[in-house]
Amino acid sequence: MSFNPHVSIDCVVFGFDGENLKVLLNERVIAEQNQNYNDKKLPGSLILDNEDLDSAASRVLSELTGLKNIYMSQFHSFGKPDRINNPRDILWLEKTMNLKIGRIVTIGYVALIKIDRKIQQQSDVTTAKWYGIDEVSKMNLAFDHNEIIHSGLEYIRGKLDNDMQLLFELLPGKFSISQLRTLHDTIYNKQSDVRNFQKKMSQIQYIIALDEKQQGVKHRAARLYKFDKMLYKKMKN
Amino acid sequence: MSFNPHVSIDCVVFGFDGENLKVLLNERVIAEQNQNYNDKKLPGSLILDNEDLDSAASRVLSELTGLKNIYMSQFHSFGKPDRINNPRDILWLEKTMNLKIGRIVTIGYVALIKIDRKIQQQSDVTTAKWYGIDEVSKMNLAFDHNEIIHSGLEYIRGKLDNDMQLLFELLPGKFSISQLRTLHDTIYNKQSDVRNFQKKMSQIQYIIALDEKQQGVKHRAARLYKFDKMLYKKMKN
Repeated sequence: MSFNPHVSIDCVVFGFDGENLKVLLNERVIAEQNQNYNDKKLPGSLILDNEDLDSAASRVLSELTGLKNIYMSQFHSFGKPDRINNPRDILWLEKTMNLKIGRIVTIGYVALIKIDRKIQQQSDVTTAKWYGIDEVSKMNLAFDHNEIIHSGLEYIRGKLDNDMQLLFELLPGKFSISQLRTLHDTIYNKQSDVRNFQKKMSQIQYIIALDEKQQGVKHRAARLYKFDKMLYKKMKN
Repeated sequence: MSFNPHVSIDCVVFGFDGENLKVLLNERVIAEQNQNYNDKKLPGSLILDNEDLDSAASRVLSELTGLKNIYMSQFHSFGKPDRINNPRDILWLEKTMNLKIGRIVTIGYVALIKIDRKIQQQSDVTTAKWYGIDEVSKMNLAFDHNEIIHSGLEYIRGKLDNDMQLLFELLPGKFSISQLRTLHDTIYNKQSDVRNFQKKMSQIQYIIALDEKQQGVKHRAARLYKFDKMLYKKMKN
Protein backbone atom coordinates (compact mmCIF):
# COMPACT_ATOMS: atom_id res chain seq x y z
CA MET A 1 0.00 0.00 0.00
CA SER A 2 1.21 3.41 -0.86
CA PHE A 3 2.17 5.93 1.75
CA ASN A 4 -0.17 8.76 2.47
CA PRO A 5 1.56 12.11 2.88
CA HIS A 6 0.02 15.39 3.95
CA VAL A 7 -0.18 18.30 1.55
CA SER A 8 0.51 21.87 2.56
CA ILE A 9 0.86 25.29 1.00
CA ASP A 10 3.75 27.68 1.60
CA CYS A 11 3.55 31.30 0.47
CA VAL A 12 6.63 33.24 -0.61
CA VAL A 13 5.61 36.90 -0.63
CA PHE A 14 8.24 39.32 -1.91
CA GLY A 15 8.13 43.07 -1.35
CA PHE A 16 10.52 45.96 -1.96
CA ASP A 17 10.86 48.92 0.41
CA GLY A 18 12.94 51.09 -1.94
CA GLU A 19 16.20 49.67 -0.66
CA ASN A 20 15.85 45.96 -0.04
CA LEU A 21 13.96 43.04 -1.45
CA LYS A 22 12.09 41.50 1.45
CA VAL A 23 10.13 38.36 2.19
CA LEU A 24 7.25 37.91 4.61
CA LEU A 25 7.85 35.46 7.48
CA ASN A 26 5.89 34.30 10.50
CA GLU A 27 7.51 33.84 13.85
CA ARG A 28 7.47 30.32 15.25
CA VAL A 29 7.77 29.57 18.94
CA ILE A 30 8.71 26.09 20.04
CA ALA A 31 8.35 25.30 23.73
CA GLU A 32 11.40 23.27 24.67
CA GLN A 33 12.23 21.83 28.07
CA ASN A 34 13.89 24.84 29.64
CA GLN A 35 13.02 27.70 27.41
CA ASN A 36 11.25 28.73 24.25
CA TYR A 37 13.03 28.48 20.94
CA ASN A 38 12.14 31.08 18.33
CA ASP A 39 12.64 30.95 14.62
CA LYS A 40 10.92 32.00 11.41
CA LYS A 41 8.88 30.23 8.78
CA LEU A 42 7.02 31.01 5.62
CA PRO A 43 3.28 31.55 5.99
CA GLY A 44 2.06 28.01 5.36
CA SER A 45 -0.40 25.37 6.49
CA LEU A 46 -2.04 22.09 5.49
CA ILE A 47 -4.75 22.18 2.82
CA LEU A 48 -8.29 21.52 3.98
CA ASP A 49 -10.54 18.69 2.92
CA ASN A 50 -12.64 20.46 0.32
CA GLU A 51 -10.31 23.15 -0.78
CA ASP A 52 -8.55 23.43 -4.10
CA LEU A 53 -4.90 24.47 -4.10
CA ASP A 54 -5.35 28.11 -5.16
CA SER A 55 -8.09 28.63 -2.55
CA ALA A 56 -5.93 27.02 0.10
CA ALA A 57 -3.11 29.41 -0.78
CA SER A 58 -5.39 32.45 -0.46
CA ARG A 59 -6.82 31.23 2.84
CA VAL A 60 -3.42 30.42 4.33
CA LEU A 61 -1.96 33.78 3.31
CA SER A 62 -4.95 35.66 4.67
CA GLU A 63 -5.00 33.74 7.98
CA LEU A 64 -1.29 34.14 8.62
CA THR A 65 -0.62 37.63 7.28
CA GLY A 66 -3.98 39.35 6.87
CA LEU A 67 -3.24 39.91 3.18
CA LYS A 68 -6.30 39.50 0.98
CA ASN A 69 -6.88 39.51 -2.78
CA ILE A 70 -3.23 38.99 -3.54
CA TYR A 71 -2.43 37.43 -6.89
CA MET A 72 -0.29 34.39 -6.21
CA SER A 73 1.27 31.96 -8.68
CA GLN A 74 1.90 28.33 -7.91
CA PHE A 75 5.55 27.85 -8.77
CA HIS A 76 6.83 24.51 -7.49
CA SER A 77 6.10 21.60 -5.17
CA PHE A 78 8.62 20.35 -2.65
CA GLY A 79 8.52 16.77 -1.47
CA LYS A 80 11.84 15.43 -0.32
CA PRO A 81 11.01 12.52 2.01
CA ASP A 82 13.34 13.99 4.65
CA ARG A 83 12.20 17.60 4.44
CA ILE A 84 10.81 17.19 7.92
CA ASN A 85 13.58 15.57 9.93
CA ASN A 86 14.68 18.30 12.31
CA PRO A 87 13.41 17.32 15.81
CA ARG A 88 12.24 20.92 16.32
CA ASP A 89 10.13 20.81 13.18
CA ILE A 90 8.61 17.50 14.23
CA LEU A 91 7.89 18.79 17.74
CA TRP A 92 6.31 21.96 16.39
CA LEU A 93 4.09 20.02 14.00
CA GLU A 94 2.94 17.70 16.76
CA LYS A 95 2.07 20.62 19.04
CA THR A 96 0.37 22.83 16.45
CA MET A 97 -1.33 20.12 14.37
CA ASN A 98 -1.97 17.74 17.25
CA LEU A 99 -0.81 15.08 14.87
CA LYS A 100 2.11 12.83 14.19
CA ILE A 101 3.11 13.73 10.67
CA GLY A 102 5.36 11.50 8.63
CA ARG A 103 5.70 13.47 5.49
CA ILE A 104 4.40 16.68 3.99
CA VAL A 105 4.51 17.57 0.31
CA THR A 106 4.25 21.35 0.15
CA ILE A 107 3.11 23.41 -2.80
CA GLY A 108 4.89 26.74 -3.15
CA TYR A 109 3.04 29.90 -4.15
CA VAL A 110 4.74 33.19 -4.86
CA ALA A 111 3.54 36.79 -4.93
CA LEU A 112 5.09 40.20 -5.49
CA ILE A 113 3.44 43.03 -3.60
CA LYS A 114 4.05 46.64 -2.73
CA ILE A 115 5.48 46.71 0.74
CA ASP A 116 3.00 49.30 1.99
CA ARG A 117 0.22 46.68 2.02
CA LYS A 118 -1.16 46.31 5.52
CA ILE A 119 0.05 43.21 7.35
CA GLN A 120 -2.33 41.98 9.99
CA GLN A 121 -3.51 38.56 10.99
CA GLN A 122 -5.81 36.57 13.18
CA SER A 123 -4.94 37.08 16.81
CA ASP A 124 -3.96 33.48 17.51
CA VAL A 125 -0.87 33.51 15.36
CA THR A 126 2.36 35.38 15.75
CA THR A 127 2.94 38.43 13.65
CA ALA A 128 4.10 38.23 10.04
CA LYS A 129 6.97 40.61 9.33
CA TRP A 130 9.18 41.65 6.45
CA TYR A 131 12.78 40.44 6.44
CA GLY A 132 15.49 41.44 3.96
CA ILE A 133 16.50 38.67 1.55
CA ASP A 134 20.17 39.00 2.54
CA GLU A 135 19.33 38.67 6.20
CA VAL A 136 17.04 35.69 5.52
CA SER A 137 19.73 33.85 3.58
CA LYS A 138 21.80 33.83 6.78
CA MET A 139 18.89 32.68 8.95
CA ASN A 140 18.11 29.06 9.66
CA LEU A 141 14.43 28.92 8.73
CA ALA A 142 11.97 26.16 9.61
CA PHE A 143 11.83 23.04 7.41
CA ASP A 144 13.26 23.61 3.90
CA HIS A 145 11.97 27.17 3.77
CA ASN A 146 15.36 28.64 2.83
CA GLU A 147 15.30 26.42 -0.26
CA ILE A 148 11.68 27.33 -1.06
CA ILE A 149 12.48 31.06 -0.91
CA HIS A 150 15.51 30.55 -3.13
CA SER A 151 13.42 28.62 -5.62
CA GLY A 152 10.69 31.31 -5.52
CA LEU A 153 13.27 33.95 -6.37
CA GLU A 154 14.53 31.86 -9.30
CA TYR A 155 10.96 31.61 -10.54
CA ILE A 156 10.49 35.38 -10.30
CA ARG A 157 13.71 35.93 -12.29
CA GLY A 158 12.41 33.68 -15.05
CA LYS A 159 9.10 35.52 -15.07
CA LEU A 160 10.83 38.91 -15.22
CA ASP A 161 12.83 37.85 -18.27
CA ASN A 162 9.46 37.39 -19.95
CA ASP A 163 7.55 40.26 -18.43
CA MET A 164 9.29 43.36 -17.08
CA GLN A 165 6.00 44.69 -15.77
CA LEU A 166 6.39 42.59 -12.63
CA LEU A 167 9.38 44.69 -11.64
CA PHE A 168 7.35 47.87 -11.69
CA GLU A 169 4.65 46.31 -9.56
CA LEU A 170 7.14 46.28 -6.72
CA LEU A 171 8.07 49.95 -7.09
CA PRO A 172 6.10 52.98 -5.92
CA GLY A 173 4.15 54.75 -8.69
CA LYS A 174 6.94 57.32 -8.97
CA PHE A 175 10.44 56.01 -8.55
CA SER A 176 14.06 57.02 -9.06
CA ILE A 177 16.33 55.12 -11.44
CA SER A 178 18.45 54.31 -8.42
CA GLN A 179 15.47 52.55 -6.81
CA LEU A 180 14.85 50.62 -10.02
CA ARG A 181 18.50 49.62 -10.17
CA THR A 182 18.55 48.52 -6.54
CA LEU A 183 15.46 46.37 -7.08
CA HIS A 184 16.82 44.93 -10.33
CA ASP A 185 20.20 44.15 -8.79
CA THR A 186 18.66 42.59 -5.68
CA ILE A 187 16.47 40.25 -7.70
CA TYR A 188 19.24 39.23 -10.09
CA ASN A 189 21.89 39.28 -7.37
CA LYS A 190 24.33 41.44 -9.30
CA GLN A 191 25.79 44.94 -9.22
CA SER A 192 24.99 47.02 -12.27
CA ASP A 193 27.21 49.90 -13.24
CA VAL A 194 25.36 53.06 -12.15
CA ARG A 195 26.00 55.08 -15.33
CA ASN A 196 25.32 52.22 -17.73
CA PHE A 197 22.10 51.35 -15.99
CA GLN A 198 20.93 54.98 -16.02
CA LYS A 199 21.73 55.23 -19.73
CA LYS A 200 20.02 51.96 -20.59
CA MET A 201 16.87 52.85 -18.68
CA SER A 202 16.66 56.32 -20.22
CA GLN A 203 16.46 54.64 -23.63
CA ILE A 204 13.45 52.53 -22.68
CA GLN A 205 10.38 54.28 -23.99
CA TYR A 206 7.94 53.01 -21.40
CA ILE A 207 9.99 54.44 -18.52
CA ILE A 208 8.80 58.05 -18.50
CA ALA A 209 10.83 60.86 -16.95
CA LEU A 210 8.67 63.17 -14.81
CA ASP A 211 9.12 66.86 -14.00
CA GLU A 212 9.43 65.92 -10.36
CA LYS A 213 12.24 65.18 -7.99
CA GLN A 214 12.50 63.12 -4.82
CA GLN A 215 11.16 64.80 -1.68
CA GLY A 216 12.86 64.89 1.70
CA VAL A 217 16.33 64.35 0.34
CA LYS A 218 18.97 66.90 1.32
CA HIS A 219 21.47 66.66 -1.50
CA ARG A 220 21.05 65.90 -5.17
CA ALA A 221 17.41 64.84 -5.12
CA ALA A 222 16.98 62.39 -7.99
CA ARG A 223 14.52 62.78 -10.84
CA LEU A 224 11.42 60.63 -10.60
CA TYR A 225 10.10 58.32 -13.31
CA LYS A 226 6.94 56.37 -13.93
CA PHE A 227 6.15 53.17 -15.77
CA ASP A 228 3.81 53.52 -18.75
CA LYS A 229 1.90 50.25 -18.57
CA MET A 230 -0.17 50.93 -21.70
CA LEU A 231 2.86 51.69 -23.84
CA TYR A 232 4.69 48.65 -22.44
CA LYS A 233 1.81 46.36 -23.34
CA LYS A 234 1.59 47.86 -26.81
CA MET A 235 5.32 47.41 -27.42
CA LYS A 236 5.29 43.87 -26.03
CA ASN A 237 2.58 42.62 -28.40
CA MET B 1 -7.84 17.15 12.02
CA SER B 2 -6.75 17.84 8.53
CA PHE B 3 -7.57 15.60 5.66
CA ASN B 4 -4.89 13.37 4.29
CA PRO B 5 -4.80 13.22 0.50
CA HIS B 6 -2.68 10.99 -1.67
CA VAL B 7 0.02 12.45 -3.88
CA SER B 8 0.67 11.25 -7.41
CA ILE B 9 2.78 12.15 -10.41
CA ASP B 10 1.47 12.55 -13.96
CA CYS B 11 3.87 12.78 -16.90
CA VAL B 12 3.05 14.79 -20.00
CA VAL B 13 5.51 13.68 -22.66
CA PHE B 14 5.33 15.58 -25.95
CA GLY B 15 6.87 14.36 -29.19
CA PHE B 16 6.76 15.50 -32.82
CA ASP B 17 6.72 13.08 -35.76
CA GLY B 18 7.34 15.70 -38.44
CA GLU B 19 3.65 16.36 -38.94
CA ASN B 20 1.89 16.32 -35.61
CA LEU B 21 2.62 17.19 -32.03
CA LYS B 22 1.85 14.08 -30.01
CA VAL B 23 1.47 13.08 -26.40
CA LEU B 24 2.18 9.72 -24.80
CA LEU B 25 -0.81 7.96 -23.22
CA ASN B 26 -1.39 4.63 -21.50
CA GLU B 27 -4.45 2.57 -22.18
CA ARG B 28 -6.76 1.97 -19.25
CA VAL B 29 -9.13 -0.95 -19.05
CA ILE B 30 -12.00 -0.83 -16.58
CA ALA B 31 -13.92 -4.04 -16.04
CA GLU B 32 -17.56 -3.05 -15.88
CA GLN B 33 -20.53 -5.34 -15.32
CA ASN B 34 -21.14 -6.50 -18.86
CA GLN B 35 -18.05 -5.47 -20.73
CA ASN B 36 -14.71 -3.77 -20.48
CA TYR B 37 -14.50 -0.02 -20.86
CA ASN B 38 -11.33 1.35 -22.46
CA ASP B 39 -9.94 4.82 -22.28
CA LYS B 40 -6.62 6.60 -22.08
CA LYS B 41 -4.65 8.25 -19.31
CA LEU B 42 -1.35 9.99 -18.79
CA PRO B 43 1.46 7.81 -17.45
CA GLY B 44 1.02 8.44 -13.73
CA SER B 45 1.03 6.79 -10.32
CA LEU B 46 1.21 7.48 -6.58
CA ILE B 47 4.55 8.51 -5.11
CA LEU B 48 6.27 5.98 -2.89
CA ASP B 49 7.13 6.35 0.75
CA ASN B 50 10.77 7.30 0.50
CA GLU B 51 10.86 8.85 -2.90
CA ASP B 52 11.34 12.50 -3.72
CA LEU B 53 9.16 14.01 -6.42
CA ASP B 54 11.69 14.06 -9.26
CA SER B 55 12.66 10.44 -8.59
CA ALA B 56 9.01 9.43 -8.48
CA ALA B 57 8.48 11.08 -11.87
CA SER B 58 11.42 9.19 -13.42
CA ARG B 59 10.27 5.90 -11.94
CA VAL B 60 6.66 6.33 -13.04
CA LEU B 61 7.67 7.29 -16.58
CA SER B 62 10.06 4.38 -16.84
CA GLU B 63 7.57 1.84 -15.44
CA LEU B 64 4.72 2.94 -17.66
CA THR B 65 6.51 3.79 -20.90
CA GLY B 66 9.98 2.26 -20.70
CA LEU B 67 11.53 5.70 -21.24
CA LYS B 68 14.65 6.26 -19.19
CA ASN B 69 16.96 9.23 -18.60
CA ILE B 70 14.40 11.69 -19.88
CA TYR B 71 14.75 15.25 -18.63
CA MET B 72 11.41 16.21 -17.11
CA SER B 73 10.35 19.52 -15.57
CA GLN B 74 7.84 19.80 -12.80
CA PHE B 75 5.34 22.34 -14.09
CA HIS B 76 2.21 22.43 -11.95
CA SER B 77 0.26 20.60 -9.26
CA PHE B 78 -3.42 19.82 -9.64
CA GLY B 79 -5.59 19.40 -6.59
CA LYS B 80 -9.25 20.20 -7.17
CA PRO B 81 -11.12 18.29 -4.45
CA ASP B 82 -13.46 16.84 -7.09
CA ARG B 83 -10.83 15.85 -9.65
CA ILE B 84 -11.71 12.25 -8.90
CA ASN B 85 -15.49 12.09 -9.02
CA ASN B 86 -16.20 10.06 -12.13
CA PRO B 87 -17.44 6.62 -10.95
CA ARG B 88 -15.18 4.98 -13.55
CA ASP B 89 -12.13 6.74 -12.15
CA ILE B 90 -13.08 5.71 -8.61
CA LEU B 91 -13.68 2.11 -9.67
CA TRP B 92 -10.38 1.96 -11.53
CA LEU B 93 -8.44 3.35 -8.54
CA GLU B 94 -10.07 0.83 -6.21
CA LYS B 95 -9.18 -2.05 -8.50
CA THR B 96 -5.63 -1.02 -9.37
CA MET B 97 -4.63 0.48 -6.02
CA ASN B 98 -6.67 -1.87 -3.86
CA LEU B 99 -7.57 1.21 -1.94
CA LYS B 100 -10.46 3.56 -1.39
CA ILE B 101 -9.03 6.91 -2.36
CA GLY B 102 -10.71 10.13 -1.35
CA ARG B 103 -8.50 12.65 -2.96
CA ILE B 104 -5.31 12.76 -4.96
CA VAL B 105 -3.16 15.84 -5.47
CA THR B 106 -1.12 15.18 -8.60
CA ILE B 107 2.12 16.83 -9.56
CA GLY B 108 2.54 17.37 -13.29
CA TYR B 109 5.86 16.79 -15.03
CA VAL B 110 6.50 17.61 -18.66
CA ALA B 111 9.09 16.45 -21.18
CA LEU B 112 9.83 17.05 -24.86
CA ILE B 113 11.41 14.14 -26.66
CA LYS B 114 12.22 13.02 -30.17
CA ILE B 115 9.49 10.67 -31.22
CA ASP B 116 11.89 7.96 -32.35
CA ARG B 117 12.73 7.10 -28.72
CA LYS B 118 11.84 3.52 -28.03
CA ILE B 119 8.62 3.04 -26.09
CA GLN B 120 8.49 -0.14 -24.08
CA GLN B 121 7.23 -0.95 -20.62
CA GLN B 122 6.92 -3.55 -17.96
CA SER B 123 4.75 -6.40 -19.13
CA ASP B 124 2.00 -5.89 -16.57
CA VAL B 125 0.79 -2.58 -17.93
CA THR B 126 -0.91 -1.76 -21.20
CA THR B 127 1.14 -0.22 -23.94
CA ALA B 128 1.97 3.48 -24.01
CA LYS B 129 1.32 5.03 -27.41
CA TRP B 130 1.61 8.38 -29.15
CA TYR B 131 -1.61 10.27 -29.88
CA GLY B 132 -1.91 13.50 -31.86
CA ILE B 133 -2.75 16.56 -29.75
CA ASP B 134 -5.79 17.37 -31.92
CA GLU B 135 -7.12 13.84 -31.54
CA VAL B 136 -6.49 13.91 -27.78
CA SER B 137 -8.37 17.17 -27.33
CA LYS B 138 -11.48 15.38 -28.60
CA MET B 139 -10.95 12.34 -26.37
CA ASN B 140 -12.40 12.02 -22.91
CA LEU B 141 -9.32 11.13 -20.90
CA ALA B 142 -9.22 9.72 -17.37
CA PHE B 143 -9.50 12.13 -14.42
CA ASP B 144 -8.55 15.73 -15.31
CA HIS B 145 -5.87 14.59 -17.75
CA ASN B 146 -7.22 16.73 -20.60
CA GLU B 147 -6.68 19.78 -18.38
CA ILE B 148 -3.21 18.61 -17.33
CA ILE B 149 -2.12 18.19 -20.97
CA HIS B 150 -3.48 21.63 -21.83
CA SER B 151 -1.62 23.15 -18.91
CA GLY B 152 1.58 21.30 -19.90
CA LEU B 153 1.33 22.77 -23.38
CA GLU B 154 0.88 26.26 -21.93
CA TYR B 155 3.99 25.72 -19.85
CA ILE B 156 5.97 24.63 -22.92
CA ARG B 157 4.84 27.75 -24.79
CA GLY B 158 6.11 29.94 -21.96
CA LYS B 159 9.42 28.09 -21.94
CA LEU B 160 9.79 28.41 -25.72
CA ASP B 161 9.33 32.18 -25.51
CA ASN B 162 12.42 32.15 -23.32
CA ASP B 163 14.41 29.44 -25.01
CA MET B 164 13.88 28.52 -28.67
CA GLN B 165 16.28 25.62 -28.34
CA LEU B 166 13.48 23.45 -26.96
CA LEU B 167 11.76 23.61 -30.33
CA PHE B 168 14.76 22.14 -32.10
CA GLU B 169 14.98 19.32 -29.61
CA LEU B 170 11.73 18.01 -31.05
CA LEU B 171 12.92 18.12 -34.64
CA PRO B 172 15.20 15.67 -36.42
CA GLY B 173 18.82 16.85 -36.77
CA LYS B 174 18.09 17.92 -40.35
CA PHE B 175 14.68 19.43 -40.94
CA SER B 176 12.73 21.37 -43.53
CA ILE B 177 11.33 24.84 -42.80
CA SER B 178 7.92 23.35 -43.38
CA GLN B 179 8.52 20.87 -40.54
CA LEU B 180 9.67 23.70 -38.29
CA ARG B 181 6.56 25.71 -39.19
CA THR B 182 4.25 22.77 -38.55
CA LEU B 183 5.80 22.19 -35.14
CA HIS B 184 5.74 25.90 -34.28
CA ASP B 185 2.12 26.27 -35.38
CA THR B 186 1.01 23.14 -33.53
CA ILE B 187 2.54 24.29 -30.28
CA TYR B 188 1.20 27.82 -30.55
CA ASN B 189 -2.07 26.67 -32.10
CA LYS B 190 -1.92 29.10 -34.99
CA GLN B 191 -1.46 29.08 -38.75
CA SER B 192 1.60 31.00 -39.92
CA ASP B 193 1.75 32.35 -43.43
CA VAL B 194 4.05 29.99 -45.35
CA ARG B 195 6.06 32.68 -47.15
CA ASN B 196 6.42 34.96 -44.14
CA PHE B 197 7.55 32.11 -41.96
CA GLN B 198 10.11 30.96 -44.54
CA LYS B 199 11.44 34.51 -44.84
CA LYS B 200 11.63 35.04 -41.08
CA MET B 201 13.44 31.75 -40.49
CA SER B 202 15.95 32.38 -43.26
CA GLN B 203 16.99 35.54 -41.42
CA ILE B 204 17.78 33.69 -38.20
CA GLN B 205 21.51 33.10 -38.13
CA TYR B 206 21.46 29.94 -36.03
CA ILE B 207 19.20 28.14 -38.52
CA ILE B 208 21.72 26.93 -41.07
CA ALA B 209 20.76 26.02 -44.65
CA LEU B 210 22.38 22.76 -45.78
CA ASP B 211 23.35 21.62 -49.27
CA GLU B 212 20.88 18.77 -48.93
CA LYS B 213 17.30 18.15 -49.85
CA GLN B 214 14.61 15.89 -48.47
CA GLN B 215 14.84 12.27 -49.56
CA GLY B 216 11.97 10.13 -50.77
CA VAL B 217 9.81 13.04 -51.84
CA LYS B 218 8.56 12.96 -55.45
CA HIS B 219 8.00 16.63 -56.19
CA ARG B 220 9.77 19.73 -55.02
CA ALA B 221 11.94 18.15 -52.33
CA ALA B 222 12.54 20.86 -49.74
CA ARG B 223 15.92 22.11 -48.62
CA LEU B 224 17.10 20.84 -45.26
CA TYR B 225 18.33 22.98 -42.38
CA LYS B 226 20.08 22.40 -39.10
CA PHE B 227 20.08 24.19 -35.78
CA ASP B 228 23.43 25.62 -34.68
CA LYS B 229 23.26 25.15 -30.93
CA MET B 230 26.63 26.79 -30.24
CA LEU B 231 25.79 29.92 -32.21
CA TYR B 232 22.35 30.08 -30.58
CA LYS B 233 23.87 29.94 -27.09
CA LYS B 234 26.42 32.58 -28.01
CA MET B 235 23.76 34.92 -29.36
CA LYS B 236 21.47 34.34 -26.40
CA ASN B 237 24.06 35.33 -23.80
